[in-house]
Amino acid sequence: QGILERLDAGEIVIGDGGFVFALEKRGYVKAGPWTPEATVEHPEAVRQLHREFLRAGSNVLQTFTFYASDDKLENRGNYVAEKITGQKVNEAACDIAKEVASEGDALVAGGVSQTPSYLSCKDKSEVKAVFRKQLDVFMKKNVDFLIAEYFEHVEEAVWAVEVLKESGKPVAATMCIGPEGDMHGVPPGQCAVQLVKAGASIVGINCHFDPDTCLETVKLMKEGLQAANLKAHLMSQPLAFHTPDCGKQGFIDLPEFPFGLEPRIVTRWDVQKYARKAYDLGIRYIGGCCGFEPYHIRAISEELGPERGFLPEASEKHGSWGDSLSMHTKPWVRARARKEYWENLKPASGRPYCPSMSKPDGWGVTKGARELMQQREATTEQQLKELFQKQK
Amino acid sequence: QGILERLDAGEIVIGDGGFVFALEKRGYVKAGPWTPEATVEHPEAVRQLHREFLRAGSNVLQTFTFYASDDKLENRGNYVAEKITGQKVNEAACDIAKEVASEGDALVAGGVSQTPSYLSCKDKSEVKAVFRKQLDVFMKKNVDFLIAEYFEHVEEAVWAVEVLKESGKPVAATMCIGPEGDMHGVPPGQCAVQLVKAGASIVGINCHFDPDTCLETVKLMKEGLQAANLKAHLMSQPLAFHTPDCGKQGFIDLPEFPFGLEPRIVTRWDVQKYARKAYDLGIRYIGGCCGFEPYHIRAISEELGPERGFLPEASEKHGSWGDSLSMHTKPWVRARARKEYWENLKPASGRPYCPSMSKPDGWGVTKGARELMQQREATTEQQLKELFQKQK
Amino acid sequence: QGILERLDAGEIVIGDGGFVFALEKRGYVKAGPWTPEATVEHPEAVRQLHREFLRAGSNVLQTFTFYASDDKLENRGNYVAEKITGQKVNEAACDIAKEVASEGDALVAGGVSQTPSYLSCKDKSEVKAVFRKQLDVFMKKNVDFLIAEYFEHVEEAVWAVEVLKESGKPVAATMCIGPEGDMHGVPPGQCAVQLVKAGASIVGINCHFDPDTCLETVKLMKEGLQAANLKAHLMSQPLAFHTPDCGKQGFIDLPEFPFGLEPRIVTRWDVQKYARKAYDLGIRYIGGCCGFEPYHIRAISEELGPERGFLPEASEKHGSWGDSLSMHTKPWVRARARKEYWENLKPASGRPYCPSMSKPDGWGVTKGARELMQQREATTEQQLKELFQKQK
Amino acid sequence: QGILERLDAGEIVIGDGGFVFALEKRGYVKAGPWTPEATVEHPEAVRQLHREFLRAGSNVLQTFTFYASDDKLENRGNYVAEKITGQKVNEAACDIAKEVASEGDALVAGGVSQTPSYLSCKDKSEVKAVFRKQLDVFMKKNVDFLIAEYFEHVEEAVWAVEVLKESGKPVAATMCIGPEGDMHGVPPGQCAVQLVKAGASIVGINCHFDPDTCLETVKLMKEGLQAANLKAHLMSQPLAFHTPDCGKQGFIDLPEFPFGLEPRIVTRWDVQKYARKAYDLGIRYIGGCCGFEPYHIRAISEELGPERGFLPEASEKHGSWGDSLSMHTKPWVRARARKEYWENLKPASGRPYCPSMSKPDGWGVTKGARELMQQREATTEQQLKELFQKQK
Repeated sequence: QGILERLDAGEIVIGDGGFVFALEKRGYVKAGPWTPEATVEHPEAVRQLHREFLRAGSNVLQTFTFYASDDKLENRGNYVAEKITGQKVNEAACDIAKEVASEGDALVAGGVSQTPSYLSCKDKSEVKAVFRKQLDVFMKKNVDFLIAEYFEHVEEAVWAVEVLKESGKPVAATMCIGPEGDMHGVPPGQCAVQLVKAGASIVGINCHFDPDTCLETVKLMKEGLQAANLKAHLMSQPLAFHTPDCGKQGFIDLPEFPFGLEPRIVTRWDVQKYARKAYDLGIRYIGGCCGFEPYHIRAISEELGPERGFLPEASEKHGSWGDSLSMHTKPWVRARARKEYWENLKPASGRPYCPSMSKPDGWGVTKGARELMQQREATTEQQLKELFQKQK
Repeated sequence: QGILERLDAGEIVIGDGGFVFALEKRGYVKAGPWTPEATVEHPEAVRQLHREFLRAGSNVLQTFTFYASDDKLENRGNYVAEKITGQKVNEAACDIAKEVASEGDALVAGGVSQTPSYLSCKDKSEVKAVFRKQLDVFMKKNVDFLIAEYFEHVEEAVWAVEVLKESGKPVAATMCIGPEGDMHGVPPGQCAVQLVKAGASIVGINCHFDPDTCLETVKLMKEGLQAANLKAHLMSQPLAFHTPDCGKQGFIDLPEFPFGLEPRIVTRWDVQKYARKAYDLGIRYIGGCCGFEPYHIRAISEELGPERGFLPEASEKHGSWGDSLSMHTKPWVRARARKEYWENLKPASGRPYCPSMSKPDGWGVTKGARELMQQREATTEQQLKELFQKQK
Repeated sequence: QGILERLDAGEIVIGDGGFVFALEKRGYVKAGPWTPEATVEHPEAVRQLHREFLRAGSNVLQTFTFYASDDKLENRGNYVAEKITGQKVNEAACDIAKEVASEGDALVAGGVSQTPSYLSCKDKSEVKAVFRKQLDVFMKKNVDFLIAEYFEHVEEAVWAVEVLKESGKPVAATMCIGPEGDMHGVPPGQCAVQLVKAGASIVGINCHFDPDTCLETVKLMKEGLQAANLKAHLMSQPLAFHTPDCGKQGFIDLPEFPFGLEPRIVTRWDVQKYARKAYDLGIRYIGGCCGFEPYHIRAISEELGPERGFLPEASEKHGSWGDSLSMHTKPWVRARARKEYWENLKPASGRPYCPSMSKPDGWGVTKGARELMQQREATTEQQLKELFQKQK
Repeated sequence: QGILERLDAGEIVIGDGGFVFALEKRGYVKAGPWTPEATVEHPEAVRQLHREFLRAGSNVLQTFTFYASDDKLENRGNYVAEKITGQKVNEAACDIAKEVASEGDALVAGGVSQTPSYLSCKDKSEVKAVFRKQLDVFMKKNVDFLIAEYFEHVEEAVWAVEVLKESGKPVAATMCIGPEGDMHGVPPGQCAVQLVKAGASIVGINCHFDPDTCLETVKLMKEGLQAANLKAHLMSQPLAFHTPDCGKQGFIDLPEFPFGLEPRIVTRWDVQKYARKAYDLGIRYIGGCCGFEPYHIRAISEELGPERGFLPEASEKHGSWGDSLSMHTKPWVRARARKEYWENLKPASGRPYCPSMSKPDGWGVTKGARELMQQREATTEQQLKELFQKQK
């Protein structure tokens, strides 16, 4: 059954987690470029991560093609061997995902994301050409459906959807924006409307913000669609980091990004709360993005186990709500084997010299700077430096 | 070259990270029992983790035989298939570690850890028989050397070392104790002396406490050996969690153990500080335990790169001190591409409703209770309950 | 010169601090009722506090007549001696304030605040009669001007202003609301417009929120007045507690209110930032409310010293920006004798087991509950209990 | 009845709070010098503070003669008018204390504290002469007993006790040290022994550390006395600031000292816990030092009300354990009117960008530097600078 058949039937579809962050920690992706040449260089590592998400309950395996557009890979050419072309990366990504998907009942989704071409103001046809090159691979490999994700500008997201729709396959589209809207100030509700009108059957949010903030934004999308009398399935794939303190551009601007985010990592119990809240909001495609490890996805599967009627394979190695502690020799550890305990725990950081919140750097802070950026006037290095100076 | 040749020559030996925690998050180990049947059930997952540590710079791959003694596996028999015998688990663990080690220049170490037999007061010969069964496998598979690790009682650790010494192979021994000493109150310095006298060539600390606390304890061991005019190499494999607030039994008693420890996870920069401090203290076998992921081990390799003259394979995907951010489009993110930035960052938790420290549960708190436990008088359920009540 | 002459001439007028909180700590006011019978019972204590504010630079001494309306004092009759009538409290308050004011150049302002009569739905004439009784005393004692402060409902505040205007004296009006507006949902800008139309020459915010939040609200008032083409002087007298986490009704709903607010107390440097920000926003009547001690008021006077051309008497005992530490014997304490140090200090709480934020109790949390309250439908004990239960 | 009659009879004696900090906030004392010329300049302010402590339950009013030795006042001569001699300050302090004491049943204690003469290595006779000058005033004014307080070196404290004993009046002696002992490394137990042998009838700790740390130190004193078979009454007057993070010299070295300590201020409930703990430890002279305001002293009186059989006057304006909230209109505020609530509250700081702990500056950190200081070798400015540099 395809993605739309499942969603139309009211099924919950569980997404997968964040590949670039997980594989960065495993040693296969470089922070900064965040490109997925690992599909060619170390397919076994990518395969293993897919497999873990599958075991955790993911119904969709996204091809590891994040930032795998040719223009992005060229940008970073200096450290990726020349012979590793965009085509090879995308093809290998599809092969691996399909191989693992066949071990279970998961669908494979080909994914595209925002491009340097758009950010450097290339025109519509050029940007679309970039997406089309990836789409060609997805079609050749015959993935099940397509996802346009991680877009900060609805304009570019719409272009991506339009290209992907050419395939005739179902298209999902998620943006990495918060409740304030996209980088040009288009509010989430309006973004959703544009995406659906462009052909997306599933819309929502991924990355950049924590679960609570993402759900808030999806809610605004839902309300926008309702107001416009449009129908679409809703989707959320947030960060696995607590980011109540971030500005408009999300966790990028937090001083901890990307190498000091550990204290912000969400627990499995945080994820269960997220899954429940997402479900209650009417979202039926529920997954994660950067920071989501297999055990976080398993937490979604477990929280929604009652609704779905089954648990994922990886739950064989996990007692619900800490149940596996019930045999511990210490009575106070045994006492942790219950839902109420973990639900109410306020976990300490063990970092008494650290604060609980940070002030975002850069554009996240100054409204004037944000506005400049939105107008695309701050494109020179000098302008950026001046803006940066003014922040301090 | 063997482990002792390397250490005797003044080389730095980098250990690996924590298997049970990493594989729990990946869906292959159950928290609570923490047993390694994954070596039989899912060898590909164990193999991949070994490989990641190897790429991160580990010079030793420990067989994934933690809690793989027959008595422990039997205890947990209800959820591990009967056909998965201790022997199979141990053999598979050796095979996998040796296979991956051969992809690089790593040594393979067979490992034993504390047993239920000792805790339930079995006698010396019974406990030793348990260790001997694992040793038989290690000899058959011809591992390079042996590690007795995660012992809370020096008496049991000594028994383990004595058994392992029968093999003629070099033996390392690490205890999971803090500066207060073992569960019977034997101070770290004295523990080290007993272990060396029993035949260990390498002694130190693993698990239960954060890097700072572990180093403090290893320092006490070092001083104890010096006072006794004994020589041994020093080793440390701490938690990758900040635990300034834990009591005598370490992180087990923290309310966050084991499912809410996320905010305590150390950053790669914390690990670099740890590696430097360990090195300065004269420790030459430097690794990690629970919570240490491949990128944490890579951080050890990178910090000690200048001393060793090379970087590990995984550093191809990592710029030193955030260097890979130097191409970022945002100037304030580029500004993070320097050592000073990450060294001084005090990372926020994004959890303003959570404290920075917790009060340990149970025995960690009351001296009287701890003493009772040390005297092994609190063995009945009723006594435990009373002690627990008194804590509140 | 009267209050309006001063403000019209562009002078900065510095208010005083919070009497009920300061005198509660000194032992003369009961938390809960918060009534000012101390003017009769212990005039020397009230006099001393006035004097300290005067020395700190206050240009206005408010009569200590907070909650001194007859209906409020009667409510609390059980612990205030019968012979202490409202009239006596109000008269003594005027006498004390005038006596101290004559020691400097301060003005005396008679103050009224929200009444139980309004909250129990008495009608306009009854509520106005309550204010008029206090006004009679202020006129008899010939105070310099009048303040209607601490109103949660603009309707009642308007009634108060109307009564006070009958006197012919200048009237200031401040509400204890946040950016969300008054308890019936009237936004701050509209509140300001209504107050000015009713006759207030000075409008603004006092109490319930921290300096940052109060300034945000005054800004909304300012914008409301501008939009309506109305002119008035602006005034702010915030809490001296950090309350970023409070809900619509401010600090009352924080779990720490009123006996655990210590960790939230603002420093003198926080106050200097507040004073500067208030000034930059165009506010010229700048004071404080609950939590503001004399040294906080002095901090306003010192921050705005350059604009005013003089420092208050109490600055003889205070070096600007820690200057008085420049003679300390320890070099690292001497190093604190500079503006940059105190401006950037992030003061620790010394409370590692406490969080930095709290969730407000009660109506602060649930929108539904707040709405009910606004509709005055939740007047029975039973309804309140049900609402309270639903919160958990 | 004199102080010893009361203590010998088993009575609890409640001390007063911290004058220099309270009067600094009221505008009468300068932070840095911390001298008490206010007794001459503004007797009404000193009188009022005494009165508030008396109302709060203080059984002893200490003359406000802290740092009132001639050598100290001369040091700071530049800002204290010349005509205000040490004699005048001390005489006025006695007059004011006696006047207020006569309004209740409090005793008056004349107090001396550490001198610049000792720190600049003047000899025993010179230092004693300084104390003797203050004693002359105390004798002339016939105070009830004498206190030598705030000594960092037991040698100087012993000299002070020896001088005070010449008077024939009872002598109490408290040091401002922590569990590590005095600045020359004399442990608390030994300090206590020396003080009692010198003639002190009451010994203990004041200032520099929070209640918990002070009690820990008094406990060590108690054990030292028991070991030496000596008898004395015990006394504690700690800070009203949480300082778990300070080093050997206490709060002086904390970065927040003295102008950013607000978030560390203890609540009244913290004080009740302190009073109970002090009582349980056998301490019978229980008061406070810097940061203790009248309501903190009242909290001691209320906690020990059951033992003493009465409450202080100021309790008329205070319901026990929040009882005065039981009439509040909001049910969730009423719900705070109980002991359990306040006992368990973990109060938030409202400062999400601040940490909970600080690293002490200077000597507090480096053992080497402390040792140097203890040897009095670091007396030149240059040496201090080098030490300070090494800290960073």
